[in-house]
Amino acid sequence: MRRLIELAKIVDGDLNHSPELEISGVGRIASVSESEITFANSRSHYDRFLASDASAAIVSGIEGITDQPIGQQKTLPKAVIVVADAEAAFAAIATEFRPVIERRTSGVHPTAVVASTASIGPDVTIHAGAVVMDGAVIGDRSTIFPNVTVMEDCQIGQDTTIFPNTVLYENTVVGDRVILHAGVVLGAFGFGYKSHTGKHELSAQLGNVVIEDDVEIGANSTIDRGTFDATRIRRGTKLDNLVMVGHNCDVGEDNLLCSQVGIAGSCNVGNGVVMGGQVGIGDHLNIGDRSILMAKSGLMHDVDPGQAVHGIPARPARKQMQIMAVSSKLPEMRKMLKQLSKSVEQLQQRSASVDQCRDAA
Amino acid sequence: MRRLIELAKIVDGDLNHSPELEISGVGRIASVSESEITFANSRSHYDRFLASDASAAIVSGIEGITDQPIGQQKTLPKAVIVVADAEAAFAAIATEFRPVIERRTSGVHPTAVVASTASIGPDVTIHAGAVVMDGAVIGDRSTIFPNVTVMEDCQIGQDTTIFPNTVLYENTVVGDRVILHAGVVLGAFGFGYKSHTGKHELSAQLGNVVIEDDVEIGANSTIDRGTFDATRIRRGTKLDNLVMVGHNCDVGEDNLLCSQVGIAGSCNVGNGVVMGGQVGIGDHLNIGDRSILMAKSGLMHDVDPGQAVHGIPARPARKQMQIMAVSSKLPEMRKMLKQLSKSVEQLQQRSASVDQCRDAA
Amino acid sequence: MRRLIELAKIVDGDLNHSPELEISGVGRIASVSESEITFANSRSHYDRFLASDASAAIVSGIEGITDQPIGQQKTLPKAVIVVADAEAAFAAIATEFRPVIERRTSGVHPTAVVASTASIGPDVTIHAGAVVMDGAVIGDRSTIFPNVTVMEDCQIGQDTTIFPNTVLYENTVVGDRVILHAGVVLGAFGFGYKSHTGKHELSAQLGNVVIEDDVEIGANSTIDRGTFDATRIRRGTKLDNLVMVGHNCDVGEDNLLCSQVGIAGSCNVGNGVVMGGQVGIGDHLNIGDRSILMAKSGLMHDVDPGQAVHGIPARPARKQMQIMAVSSKLPEMRKMLKQLSKSVEQLQQRSASVDQCRDAA
Repeated sequence: MRRLIELAKIVDGDLNHSPELEISGVGRIASVSESEITFANSRSHYDRFLASDASAAIVSGIEGITDQPIGQQKTLPKAVIVVADAEAAFAAIATEFRPVIERRTSGVHPTAVVASTASIGPDVTIHAGAVVMDGAVIGDRSTIFPNVTVMEDCQIGQDTTIFPNTVLYENTVVGDRVILHAGVVLGAFGFGYKSHTGKHELSAQLGNVVIEDDVEIGANSTIDRGTFDATRIRRGTKLDNLVMVGHNCDVGEDNLLCSQVGIAGSCNVGNGVVMGGQVGIGDHLNIGDRSILMAKSGLMHDVDPGQAVHGIPARPARKQMQIMAVSSKLPEMRKMLKQLSKSVEQLQQRSASVDQCRDAA
Repeated sequence: MRRLIELAKIVDGDLNHSPELEISGVGRIASVSESEITFANSRSHYDRFLASDASAAIVSGIEGITDQPIGQQKTLPKAVIVVADAEAAFAAIATEFRPVIERRTSGVHPTAVVASTASIGPDVTIHAGAVVMDGAVIGDRSTIFPNVTVMEDCQIGQDTTIFPNTVLYENTVVGDRVILHAGVVLGAFGFGYKSHTGKHELSAQLGNVVIEDDVEIGANSTIDRGTFDATRIRRGTKLDNLVMVGHNCDVGEDNLLCSQVGIAGSCNVGNGVVMGGQVGIGDHLNIGDRSILMAKSGLMHDVDPGQAVHGIPARPARKQMQIMAVSSKLPEMRKMLKQLSKSVEQLQQRSASVDQCRDAA
Repeated sequence: MRRLIELAKIVDGDLNHSPELEISGVGRIASVSESEITFANSRSHYDRFLASDASAAIVSGIEGITDQPIGQQKTLPKAVIVVADAEAAFAAIATEFRPVIERRTSGVHPTAVVASTASIGPDVTIHAGAVVMDGAVIGDRSTIFPNVTVMEDCQIGQDTTIFPNTVLYENTVVGDRVILHAGVVLGAFGFGYKSHTGKHELSAQLGNVVIEDDVEIGANSTIDRGTFDATRIRRGTKLDNLVMVGHNCDVGEDNLLCSQVGIAGSCNVGNGVVMGGQVGIGDHLNIGDRSILMAKSGLMHDVDPGQAVHGIPARPARKQMQIMAVSSKLPEMRKMLKQLSKSVEQLQQRSASVDQCRDAA
């Protein structure tokens, strides 16, 4: 519990009333409870605050309130702390209630198993139960959380964080400032088989996975090794949870791949691409720079740079929207079609009888 | 191997014949082999038993058999054990062949690493290789299986089971009688980015994950932490494997979320909702109480309470069924449309010639 | 760095020129850089090599080059090493630059925790942090990588490889020459519930998972245990990453299941089946031998042997292709329909006026 006046001081804000109000925590407007503080940085947001259970909010950018002296807000129905940037101030207060864990460099935990041939940079932390196998290199200030497995000859850059229970197969290369969340698997075998008389024989697995600088990969995502060379995720690209990137793919820079996206083998994805959740991409496709693949799309063809696509099969998004709109009228269209067919038949009969009649005349 | 008469005794049932028959195990009707025993609790089930390889079944609720004295069943072609509840008796016999593992409270394994600042309740079991970090609290009688990682300040309730290799990020809160299956990841970073000139900067990650009482979460599912406050799964909700719940979501009570469901950030899901496999839900949507989202649906809009929806984009299920039925006639409709178009053109020409003719007359 | 002439010797090939060229590694034609060597085994592949950054390639099967004496190739614009099988030679050179890790049998690592009641065959390797619980059996020459958890009474065959952080629940049976990639979970509870007044109670979890010989399972895939007996994956079947197989399923021999496929409970899948990525199969369905389920299909009905299906709902692929083609014309069809409707109305009016006219005459 913190008094409202204390919170106002922390964010250097102006409080209108109720300095002694006890606050138990922070809550977004959609889920805030009575004793929590929320924030509002627009009129509509502020109106939702008034309608919510919350008795206090941090506010900014609301006409008639934040642009007036605090003295004039004393009659407002609920307590507000006026600041310059409500979201930033809200974040500061959130950390008051749930402090960010400060993790200090703590070296190699006695239960971690680090091969004598591995090379560990200065100020690296390797937590309990982590295993670093022969020839692996871990760069300065990187953190390996508990129960991570780093297999032979992996190279991990500087200031990289690998969360618990993640697995890097042999020869995986990871850049600087990379974040690998828990349960990520890099470098498992590519799903390539040669089939003889119905039996499937695994193809070559001689490549590896290369993750460039500033990439972030979500929990339980998997990226398979290349057949001969690298499956590559380029600088600055972010993957959400449970994403699959197949063998030999080259995924460009600064992409955003939402949860449960699946990319089959040997695709080339450009830079600045955005993929919605559960998108699937067939193998050997080229996805152009800055293209947008809308959620759940199924790609069977290349995508041009800058293009937005949608649907299964994926089509230009505008076109797909039209198709979806018309689809919802399909039952009605079918009825109409049947009726038209009947009308035309009647007209044809009449027309024939008119002809007959004329012929007879 | 067990003799049939022994099995009959175990379930206190009446056997018609073949007491010395040797039984090697149990098998459902769909996969039972000759030496196994199966069960039937309906006439159709019983008929499948007769047609199967099995030589014996536990039966209940079959007219003309289970409602007659066992003496009259001696001439039946296959051996049956008549009981009051065939499925329950079948379960009892299954445990004869594959006994349920009895796991006793065994304290903290010497290779588990439990921080001195962690608080461990009475009768807790922490298995080999599990790591419990600073400030974590584990309630009475809970079980932490091998290679689980519980990060700082997590709070785990009583009688909760965490299967191997699961990861709880810092500040995760888990209730009583919760089951987390292997490979679950709770509290990884939410997939929220602010993009400046094409670069993506991670948003605040100040929240946590709250799992209420009696929730069960399937293998390798992932639930991301909230931006400022909690991503929450409410009491009694069950998640299947490989499910993704995005940051800031509030998932209500007693839901069933089938495998590979993905829910994007900041959704509010009501109580008693059922989601089929591979459903995807766009961000910031409201899913009403007791609604049903059919398998593979893609949600782009809110769903009303009690509504059943289906399709991509999701529409009322009844409507979508109609659309799907008509869709299958699309090629035929197009042909019909072309033909009609031709017919109408002909009629127009004739009509024009009739007019001409009339005008000429 | 290797000189080109050295590489030619390794693969016993004929080099046309540039013996002293320094090569830094291998690259597929799609991603090769200037200092790397690539390969070409067709004319079109060779043309791409000429257009690429690469200065050298291993070649076979290219008319006018590989069928001519090497002496005649001296004037070719780029260096080539002519061999009998370019892909095989390329693989050999790939291993020169990134040697395959040789892992020797190394027994049980001191930090592995193996129950005294477990039975470990000769020449088994159990790596650091792996946990093998009571009664488990591990066959000859099998390898258990770090941080794997093998629960009670599991039976693992010979020459089987279990990559890091994989989990086998109690009673799981795994055959010979099986590969389980990192993060796989076998035997978690089936998603079966009995619901009373809106609450969900877990059904029996008495079965197990059986993985037959020569099966390979991709990273983070999950297979749930049967209710009473086995969920079974039969001999030679290969699963890609993030695949879900529900409880009681029986998946036949020599199948290929691509990434993110989900199979609901109690399905029977035949032999030689191929499933594309993100396919979903409803519960209790029968999928015939050698059927093909195209990517992203949603199965609501059984599939006949040899049938190819596609779409949501899945239909015969040929039919679905027609439907998809016509779908793209839906907006145009609707316009056409409206126009036709108008034309027919006009024709009806005219026809009526003709009739009137005739009646009046």
